[in-house]
Amino acid sequence: MRKFIKRSSKKAGSAPGTLVFVGEKKAEKVTFTIIDYDADNLQETEVASVDECLAYRDKKSVTWINISGLHDVVIIEKLGEKFNLHPLLMEDIVNTEQRPKLEDYDDYLFVILKMLYSVEGNHVIQHEQISLIVTPSVVISLQEKEGDVFDPVRQRIRKGKGRIRKNGTDYLAYALIDTVVDHYFKVFEEIGEKIEELQEQVLEKPSPELLQSIQNLKREMIFIRKSIWPLREIISGLLRSESALIKEDILPYLRDVYDHTIQVIDTAETFRDMLSGMLDIYLSSLSNKMNEVMKVLTIMATIFIPLTFIAGIYGMNFEFMPELKWHWSYPVLWIILITIFVAMVFWFRRKKWL
Amino acid sequence: MRKFIKRSSKKAGSAPGTLVFVGEKKAEKVTFTIIDYDADNLQETEVASVDECLAYRDKKSVTWINISGLHDVVIIEKLGEKFNLHPLLMEDIVNTEQRPKLEDYDDYLFVILKMLYSVEGNHVIQHEQISLIVTPSVVISLQEKEGDVFDPVRQRIRKGKGRIRKNGTDYLAYALIDTVVDHYFKVFEEIGEKIEELQEQVLEKPSPELLQSIQNLKREMIFIRKSIWPLREIISGLLRSESALIKEDILPYLRDVYDHTIQVIDTAETFRDMLSGMLDIYLSSLSNKMNEVMKVLTIMATIFIPLTFIAGIYGMNFEFMPELKWHWSYPVLWIILITIFVAMVFWFRRKKWL
Amino acid sequence: MRKFIKRSSKKAGSAPGTLVFVGEKKAEKVTFTIIDYDADNLQETEVASVDECLAYRDKKSVTWINISGLHDVVIIEKLGEKFNLHPLLMEDIVNTEQRPKLEDYDDYLFVILKMLYSVEGNHVIQHEQISLIVTPSVVISLQEKEGDVFDPVRQRIRKGKGRIRKNGTDYLAYALIDTVVDHYFKVFEEIGEKIEELQEQVLEKPSPELLQSIQNLKREMIFIRKSIWPLREIISGLLRSESALIKEDILPYLRDVYDHTIQVIDTAETFRDMLSGMLDIYLSSLSNKMNEVMKVLTIMATIFIPLTFIAGIYGMNFEFMPELKWHWSYPVLWIILITIFVAMVFWFRRKKWL
Amino acid sequence: MRKFIKRSSKKAGSAPGTLVFVGEKKAEKVTFTIIDYDADNLQETEVASVDECLAYRDKKSVTWINISGLHDVVIIEKLGEKFNLHPLLMEDIVNTEQRPKLEDYDDYLFVILKMLYSVEGNHVIQHEQISLIVTPSVVISLQEKEGDVFDPVRQRIRKGKGRIRKNGTDYLAYALIDTVVDHYFKVFEEIGEKIEELQEQVLEKPSPELLQSIQNLKREMIFIRKSIWPLREIISGLLRSESALIKEDILPYLRDVYDHTIQVIDTAETFRDMLSGMLDIYLSSLSNKMNEVMKVLTIMATIFIPLTFIAGIYGMNFEFMPELKWHWSYPVLWIILITIFVAMVFWFRRKKWL
Amino acid sequence: MRKFIKRSSKKAGSAPGTLVFVGEKKAEKVTFTIIDYDADNLQETEVASVDECLAYRDKKSVTWINISGLHDVVIIEKLGEKFNLHPLLMEDIVNTEQRPKLEDYDDYLFVILKMLYSVEGNHVIQHEQISLIVTPSVVISLQEKEGDVFDPVRQRIRKGKGRIRKNGTDYLAYALIDTVVDHYFKVFEEIGEKIEELQEQVLEKPSPELLQSIQNLKREMIFIRKSIWPLREIISGLLRSESALIKEDILPYLRDVYDHTIQVIDTAETFRDMLSGMLDIYLSSLSNKMNEVMKVLTIMATIFIPLTFIAGIYGMNFEFMPELKWHWSYPVLWIILITIFVAMVFWFRRKKWL
Repeated sequence: MRKFIKRSSKKAGSAPGTLVFVGEKKAEKVTFTIIDYDADNLQETEVASVDECLAYRDKKSVTWINISGLHDVVIIEKLGEKFNLHPLLMEDIVNTEQRPKLEDYDDYLFVILKMLYSVEGNHVIQHEQISLIVTPSVVISLQEKEGDVFDPVRQRIRKGKGRIRKNGTDYLAYALIDTVVDHYFKVFEEIGEKIEELQEQVLEKPSPELLQSIQNLKREMIFIRKSIWPLREIISGLLRSESALIKEDILPYLRDVYDHTIQVIDTAETFRDMLSGMLDIYLSSLSNKMNEVMKVLTIMATIFIPLTFIAGIYGMNFEFMPELKWHWSYPVLWIILITIFVAMVFWFRRKKWL
Repeated sequence: MRKFIKRSSKKAGSAPGTLVFVGEKKAEKVTFTIIDYDADNLQETEVASVDECLAYRDKKSVTWINISGLHDVVIIEKLGEKFNLHPLLMEDIVNTEQRPKLEDYDDYLFVILKMLYSVEGNHVIQHEQISLIVTPSVVISLQEKEGDVFDPVRQRIRKGKGRIRKNGTDYLAYALIDTVVDHYFKVFEEIGEKIEELQEQVLEKPSPELLQSIQNLKREMIFIRKSIWPLREIISGLLRSESALIKEDILPYLRDVYDHTIQVIDTAETFRDMLSGMLDIYLSSLSNKMNEVMKVLTIMATIFIPLTFIAGIYGMNFEFMPELKWHWSYPVLWIILITIFVAMVFWFRRKKWL
Repeated sequence: MRKFIKRSSKKAGSAPGTLVFVGEKKAEKVTFTIIDYDADNLQETEVASVDECLAYRDKKSVTWINISGLHDVVIIEKLGEKFNLHPLLMEDIVNTEQRPKLEDYDDYLFVILKMLYSVEGNHVIQHEQISLIVTPSVVISLQEKEGDVFDPVRQRIRKGKGRIRKNGTDYLAYALIDTVVDHYFKVFEEIGEKIEELQEQVLEKPSPELLQSIQNLKREMIFIRKSIWPLREIISGLLRSESALIKEDILPYLRDVYDHTIQVIDTAETFRDMLSGMLDIYLSSLSNKMNEVMKVLTIMATIFIPLTFIAGIYGMNFEFMPELKWHWSYPVLWIILITIFVAMVFWFRRKKWL
Repeated sequence: MRKFIKRSSKKAGSAPGTLVFVGEKKAEKVTFTIIDYDADNLQETEVASVDECLAYRDKKSVTWINISGLHDVVIIEKLGEKFNLHPLLMEDIVNTEQRPKLEDYDDYLFVILKMLYSVEGNHVIQHEQISLIVTPSVVISLQEKEGDVFDPVRQRIRKGKGRIRKNGTDYLAYALIDTVVDHYFKVFEEIGEKIEELQEQVLEKPSPELLQSIQNLKREMIFIRKSIWPLREIISGLLRSESALIKEDILPYLRDVYDHTIQVIDTAETFRDMLSGMLDIYLSSLSNKMNEVMKVLTIMATIFIPLTFIAGIYGMNFEFMPELKWHWSYPVLWIILITIFVAMVFWFRRKKWL
Repeated sequence: MRKFIKRSSKKAGSAPGTLVFVGEKKAEKVTFTIIDYDADNLQETEVASVDECLAYRDKKSVTWINISGLHDVVIIEKLGEKFNLHPLLMEDIVNTEQRPKLEDYDDYLFVILKMLYSVEGNHVIQHEQISLIVTPSVVISLQEKEGDVFDPVRQRIRKGKGRIRKNGTDYLAYALIDTVVDHYFKVFEEIGEKIEELQEQVLEKPSPELLQSIQNLKREMIFIRKSIWPLREIISGLLRSESALIKEDILPYLRDVYDHTIQVIDTAETFRDMLSGMLDIYLSSLSNKMNEVMKVLTIMATIFIPLTFIAGIYGMNFEFMPELKWHWSYPVLWIILITIFVAMVFWFRRKKWL
């Protein structure tokens, strides 16, 4: 439930620009990883403080500063000061329950994204807020916890082949966003499997627990939708942006990631439709079971009630019941009972109930 | 129900600009609290009449006049005259069933907001209309009753740190709107808890009273939605406004509160979805219960009806029923009855009904 | 049903501009009431023919000609000729099943509105078409029948205070439209009460008649919606209009009535939502009742079926049934029967069925 | 079903501009009716071939060529050649499963409409494609079969009064479109009656056949909707058109027919809503019936099951059952049975089941 | 399920522009078919490698290169190099799970379409991605597998009549797109038949398997919708395109194919509506069956339960039951039983249950 009420009440009332970490602490300490490169050179370092990052601020080569851990607001505040960032931006970074968005502060772009993780085994989707600050020579990425999600980008930089080393911070930012979007497909594959599993079960054994699972997945999708819909605006915002930070030869790549975003949204909508459809099947499956139960009851009752009545008749103690005295009464009665039984069975068969 | 028909019929037919208080009287008397400040000075007073407020009208420092209690239309009318406000605006202030809106009267801005309160214990959402009049040097805020909702803003002004003392009336207005929006998160947390509570109950014991609660909450959400959707227009109206009253360095703050508004709306929509989903669960939970009831009936009836029939057969009084004379008839019959019973139980178990 | 197919087939095929009265005749004769005023003078007359109205056509003071009764197309046609109105406009006036609309004929504005009445006691909503023709010095209002709905406006003109006497035909037209919109609130209050009444009944005794009532009210709302949605366009059309007939100082008043229209639409939408929700409650209420019925049946059948079986066993006539001879059989059997009975009752209580 | 897949597969693969008649042949032979008129003269002829029509092509007076029967593609092709029409346009004319549309070919306008007919008695809606080609001096109208739908227009031309004789081809085209739209009201009146009929039946006897009827009507409405929605675009296209063919004094007439189109669409939407609502009533009516059935069963079973049990008890053959010997046992038992019966009936009455 | 998660996770993380074939290999080897033509000449060849295609690159005549088989990324990569195509475009071609789209790379246009096939017999819809690259003198079409879908276009080129030989690559591209769109109608006819089949079954025998079929078809439609909605944008993109590649005399043809696309979308929406409606009928059909079952049970139980009770009464063994001794008791009892039976049957008939 927590994640639907995104901004915690503990923040409410504080002055804007006050840094308050909202979320759960996911990393032990704040780590700074720096990759500095141009077409020819590459330097990777891990530094201990914001001050050490500062050296790269005005370097002409492309510098990627990756910061993991947002709970230490003092460090984040210092980063803001040193890199001259707007206080509201800093506030958004540490409030990990932001909506994805793009903001253009003339000198730098600010992007908030949601990374989705599916924890193996239990199909629970976890999310992490990723912030990107893009200046002409530096990209700062901030994650809630250390993770290997950006490793493919690191590999491409290290290998030095491909376009990444020849391009600027805009291409690096694109590569990072693309990685996040690509990750959605991975999560969606798992959700797809889960949906298929549910779909098989829903016809076989519709239980309240299954309904619960469907509802949980549906709610999961509501949350995911809210993470990915704004993505579309963000990327179309970058495409239409007049910022000098986005060079024109980057546009085809942005269009490409835009296409992927549309695909992600399409898939999410499809999942939603399928989950809604599943509820219909669930209900009709319940009705079917009920029908089956009722048929069994009706068949049994309808066959035996008249038979029992006949037996009851001849259990009466009237003194003058001629049939009771007749010698063939009993076998004749059995013939009658069996005839009624067989006729009933035939009738039910004709009605397709048997 | 009252709150859905916002404009009372008692107003219908009166000339526009006629001040008629519509709503319930929530305060005993009208109180005027004035905070007058600039970067260096701060003065707080409580005055008794509109005339005393007038002194601050043309003062260069920022003056915040907070008025609690709207039922005394004479006072409100006088305020309008002294501050030269449009009669329709005055009419909107005292009609507490207005839709939130922003109006730009060149010399001043007029904003109507809805404050939401959740009364502890009974989860009933109460609302209060808050009007803001923003002139170059004065912000007049009008509340239906005295409340401490703006206290954090007062604290920030008193402490003198932060941006509030260095900025003009636009920033003060922003701070007040931000406080109202922040308050929504608080109310939503309580609604969220209520929804979670209902969600647990709906699977366990679906009662008509529970359905009633769900419907009440749903209606509550309809009302809340109508309070918060216009907020979005109001703030985007302020953002796009060409009014000289909104200075450019305020825009990032307005964008920030705009983001929060979107989050509030998102959450409200999510709640709506969850409440709709709950109705589906409710109905399917009812079907499940019915299924269970039917199964018990069917199992009992199906097992005992044939057995009773057999007992009925040997209760018949025919003179010539050879079985009645046989010595082992009775124990053999018990074996047959038990066999049928066991077979039935097995059959139901195979059908997964037991 | 009639009112959903607005244009009668009796009109189909006739040439455009042919005046054919479509609707039911609601007034006996056509009456002309004239109020002619400026800031200082006021003259009220009732005239008998169009010709007498003509005198006021070019007078500089504001003239309001109210015509009740549209069935006499000859009179209406003459009015059109004398005041030089477009034939299609005249056709729209007498076809009382028009959609509300605004048309700008350069020299004059033409507005069609729907007035709603709730006939006391039976909650049936009646409607009446009101047409307004606004020229620089004359406002002609046409009603289907004589009514007192515009009386408050007349009162305000007579009293001579307020803005109405100091303003032109645009203000008078605004005042008339405002009166119509205000009247909606009155009708909505009654509908609101009716909805509340239904809501109480739907949980207590869901009958087909109640469902019928809900559906009727729903259909009523469909019709009302079609009357009020176009209102929004009409008033925003007046607001954006470049017609010289609408002076700028009228705009705040139009914005005010626009706000009211939005409120009316909001309320109508809320009613629609509530009526839809009621159907859900109705269905689930039915399911609940069914569940209750089934439980009673199941409890009775499940308790007595095994007991009856046991009684049946000892009603058998086998010669060799040792229990029949035992002295304590009968009381022991009663103990067994009562034990089963009590066990069953306990079991049902644990299942919360009792 | 056919009509939902509009373009037949027999066309697929042929070159664009190839004339293939798609639809069912509704007329025996192609007939050409020509009315040529100006304010003073009127000439009506029926010709046998396209060549004879050609004489009117460049005549200054207004010529209306009505062609009935589209199955003979050779004739249609010749028409295209003689009047210099675009091949794709000709293809659209003979493919009678087109969507209504407006196309502006500079020299002429091309309009496709759908005429609806309700065949008396069986409420089946039939449709016919009507194409209009409007040049400065000629209007060619093409119908699938001979029909009298345009007779009112012919009458108005013949009578020579009204505007039609004084105006050009644009007014004639307007008159024809207006006639088609007016015809919708006629069809809708019949549908309205059918809906009312269904509505009465749905509460009384909800049968699968009735459901079928509702579904059929719903599907009919889907089809009609697809015929009338594009009409709106067509007429607003004509209104906004910059074609020299549409003169300005025609615009009020087009606005009038536009209003009617909106009314038609409104009514169609209302019908859709009503039909959807009917399904809800149908389902709840079924539930109601089920409830009633269950109540009867429960009342009968609940009353007689305990009574039968008691009778069963005293049917047991134990030797030592003191009650059996008592003289008043039997009448006392009857009193007990009747007491139970009456108590049950009272209990059911209190529960409102009886 | 696979097809709903369009971009495979095996691609995630690789650099943009890396060619990875995503999809299933549908062709054995890559084949190149070349048709080179102008108004007078025509040359058809099948070549073995990209290099041989290169000769046609700068030829003035229109060249259509059809490539079947996309799994060999080396060949596709070479094609990209030789024809100077953007790497992202090449990536899209081999990733067969793209969304249909149009991209304008100034020198050439790039179009991705989805071809639908219905495999005879089992109603499963298969899809194939078709890419078109349109340069001033060459159209390259890429298919996943060899197919005869473009044969009609080939025939038209060979026959040399019609417009195709006289026009450029834009007309050829139009012809190819038109062929794909026309093919949809064929597929839709089969789906239409399938829907009709289901519709007949749903009222007769609503089984869970049928529900499954409906759901499968619904999901199929979701997928098809996602293939055809973007088509609309593509073609309207071509219509509004300012590319020099699209000449003006092609526009009427594009408008024609646009109309067909709208028809395709309309039909898809109609199918969706019908499938949704079918679910409603399914559920109500289930309810109907249940009702019928319950009626049978109720009638049987209600008739025989009182009769059995009466028989039970006279099975009691009280010593003093005067009726047992009377001579006419037994026949009188039969008369009573039959009377009750007949009365019950009458009562049920009056209630319309029989």
